[in-house]
Amino acid sequence: MNLVIDETHDPAVVSWIESANGHSEFPLQNLAFGVFSMPGEKSRGGVAIGDFILDIDQLARSGLLQGVAQQAGEAASGSTLNAFLASGLDARRALRRALFALLRAEGRVNIVERMLIPAGEATLHAPAAVGGYTDFFAGIHHARNAGSLFRPDNPLLPNYKYVPVGYHGRASSIRISGEPVRRPRGQRKLPGSEIPEFGPSEKLDYELELGLWVGQENRLGEPVGIEAAAGHLAGICLLNDWSARDLQAWEYQPLGPFLAKNFMTTISPWIVTLEALAPYRVPQPSRPVGDPPPLPYLMNDEDQRRGAFAIELEVFIQTRQMRATGVSPHRLSRGSATDLYWTPAQLLAHHTSNGCDLHPGDLLGTGTISSAAPAGVGSLLEHTANGQRAIRLPTSETRTFLEDGDEIWLQAHANVEGRVKIGFGECRGRIVQAPRPVG
Amino acid sequence: MNLVIDETHDPAVVSWIESANGHSEFPLQNLAFGVFSMPGEKSRGGVAIGDFILDIDQLARSGLLQGVAQQAGEAASGSTLNAFLASGLDARRALRRALFALLRAEGRVNIVERMLIPAGEATLHAPAAVGGYTDFFAGIHHARNAGSLFRPDNPLLPNYKYVPVGYHGRASSIRISGEPVRRPRGQRKLPGSEIPEFGPSEKLDYELELGLWVGQENRLGEPVGIEAAAGHLAGICLLNDWSARDLQAWEYQPLGPFLAKNFMTTISPWIVTLEALAPYRVPQPSRPVGDPPPLPYLMNDEDQRRGAFAIELEVFIQTRQMRATGVSPHRLSRGSATDLYWTPAQLLAHHTSNGCDLHPGDLLGTGTISSAAPAGVGSLLEHTANGQRAIRLPTSETRTFLEDGDEIWLQAHANVEGRVKIGFGECRGRIVQAPRPVG
Repeated sequence: MNLVIDETHDPAVVSWIESANGHSEFPLQNLAFGVFSMPGEKSRGGVAIGDFILDIDQLARSGLLQGVAQQAGEAASGSTLNAFLASGLDARRALRRALFALLRAEGRVNIVERMLIPAGEATLHAPAAVGGYTDFFAGIHHARNAGSLFRPDNPLLPNYKYVPVGYHGRASSIRISGEPVRRPRGQRKLPGSEIPEFGPSEKLDYELELGLWVGQENRLGEPVGIEAAAGHLAGICLLNDWSARDLQAWEYQPLGPFLAKNFMTTISPWIVTLEALAPYRVPQPSRPVGDPPPLPYLMNDEDQRRGAFAIELEVFIQTRQMRATGVSPHRLSRGSATDLYWTPAQLLAHHTSNGCDLHPGDLLGTGTISSAAPAGVGSLLEHTANGQRAIRLPTSETRTFLEDGDEIWLQAHANVEGRVKIGFGECRGRIVQAPRPVG
Repeated sequence: MNLVIDETHDPAVVSWIESANGHSEFPLQNLAFGVFSMPGEKSRGGVAIGDFILDIDQLARSGLLQGVAQQAGEAASGSTLNAFLASGLDARRALRRALFALLRAEGRVNIVERMLIPAGEATLHAPAAVGGYTDFFAGIHHARNAGSLFRPDNPLLPNYKYVPVGYHGRASSIRISGEPVRRPRGQRKLPGSEIPEFGPSEKLDYELELGLWVGQENRLGEPVGIEAAAGHLAGICLLNDWSARDLQAWEYQPLGPFLAKNFMTTISPWIVTLEALAPYRVPQPSRPVGDPPPLPYLMNDEDQRRGAFAIELEVFIQTRQMRATGVSPHRLSRGSATDLYWTPAQLLAHHTSNGCDLHPGDLLGTGTISSAAPAGVGSLLEHTANGQRAIRLPTSETRTFLEDGDEIWLQAHANVEGRVKIGFGECRGRIVQAPRPVG
């Protein structure tokens, strides 16, 4: 299991890379994995450390790694990290320990210094080829908030507290932070109109989520039990499930969201490993009195005790006018991953409970994470009550939904008392105008 | 466009391979592509011809092909046909013409005879790596039949005649004909019960569909117009969208089907190309008086005139007892692909209308194809009114849903007056018992 807390989490240890100490999102205790390239060179695996990226491809050819750490290093050298995700917990942990030893203050080696690339000079890429992408709906406050807009008397459907509700998303349109988000066109039916019209979405929204990277695979017909499920997850990223609410409202019955979501999904480019996150695991929040216990296939004592993650989440917006006038991004909300009704292990166990096969590099979205308080809701749908209440920004601009030029940033930090705070990097996307009409 | 009818469709031309003439599903006019292997050898591309498979890998190394036909042959040689699907209409058509010339009676060459493998000795594989799998709901009689079980007064939802409704399916669990279908476990809530239970599905069903193979890709943010959409499709197969109705009823609100479908989808292993299907294209059936016209982005004169396919479809069942007592498979239904409300081109144009990117080897299911008559419904849900009316089989056994040991066969033939009837091969799967419980 990836719950072991060891020296690699010790908050007293610092790195010889100064920028990794202090307030970096990528201190020595994080060691997040990604894929980067330099101009004219092939893309390859790297580890974020302070303001630098450690080139894993060079490291794996240096002779500094041994045994399973070397095997994991080779698996993390290529243009995707799928092999690294598949390499298994022992290999990943051995590489983590080796990296920690090389990057801690006492471990400085000149040869490693030459493998460091200033992060600002590198181009980041998708960390893995996503085979399957599934999006869940595990944020109960979001489910209740969204439900109450359409069913005020019955916001949560009867299955919600039994079924980790999810659906398949589109893997091909997942992109990393920074790629522009083209406003989709689509069918929407205006109130009072008899027939739908086709045009640019007028209710473009973001959704604040975490993405869970699958590591170990399971074969078709072989469910993963809840006790083993966390061991099939390799890491976590940020995920923005861009949503066109007007398209969604008109298309989603009876088979769920489709074109309202699949035009693009943005993820943060760094995989924060479950090994790094071991100290930030917390009990699954108690279910309110009256809620049913999870069915046995979703119930495991250790998962109840340490299955949730103390990850703080923030959403910022910066409009075109804010950028032009030098106004900093404005925080729209602040929430916590402990507001998820289901743990990541429960999501994976449920997904495979019918025998569905998952593979290294598959990605599971948690669903929008909203807190119970209005300041912590994870979408504009909730903030503005589906466009009925505009938000006022520092520039005195107002927003019900996103306008062209708006940029949304998601940020997250794993944080518990007595530990170093570790970050997830950027997950941002700027809205650009709809493509030209076709046909 | 792949609408050209030429000599390769001439019904008067026969092959020197005797078994391809007469009643074969794979006459000279078909030339369907797949991937096969022989014991101990690597898997590679092949073309079905009568009772044989022509080894395209050998052909591409023989010097018998030239120019773009040679390029297409090389693209169709590997262990998946993704490169062949991507190779474009001109290349695919050039290879088709070359194959036709080599296999017609006048073209017999000894060297080609040595490239033929008896189909019964080969193992077939998935013809392409499916990147994305989308399932539509374009069978209007199915939509109405299924809707009437749950909403008798309002079987078709208001969006149905405007939106080609679809959702994302699970690509990883697509398997080819012949692979056993393991009964899924899952949550289902029995009538009168307060809480759901977890166990093997008791309402396992099939769904008769066609699968549309995507050829040419479109990039993210670049919709394919309706006039170009058919050109982005490369071929058609049979598809059985196995469905656990009890899981589906409990899980599907509000985000659509998930574990009720993703435990497995069976496809036929041969890709019948759109080039082969050119003579079987027919007008899109007229919409009933009062139905709205398609919105402009889904409207194209040529697609209205020749966008549908004259493909006859059949479903057979053979139970364990039928096999034991030598009773032939029993036909459950007989329908036609002309009962689809939307053309394949409309499905693809809609899918990309928001900028969603599709790639070679993506697969689009049409949705269950049912005719207006009870003898042509494409699922047991419809046949038995969700289990209320049992079907009686020739053995006097009855069925509401599928039992362990039952085998479902889908068959299809493209057929119009004055042309050779061409087939799609087998799409069958036998139900095996649920996996052992976990957790």
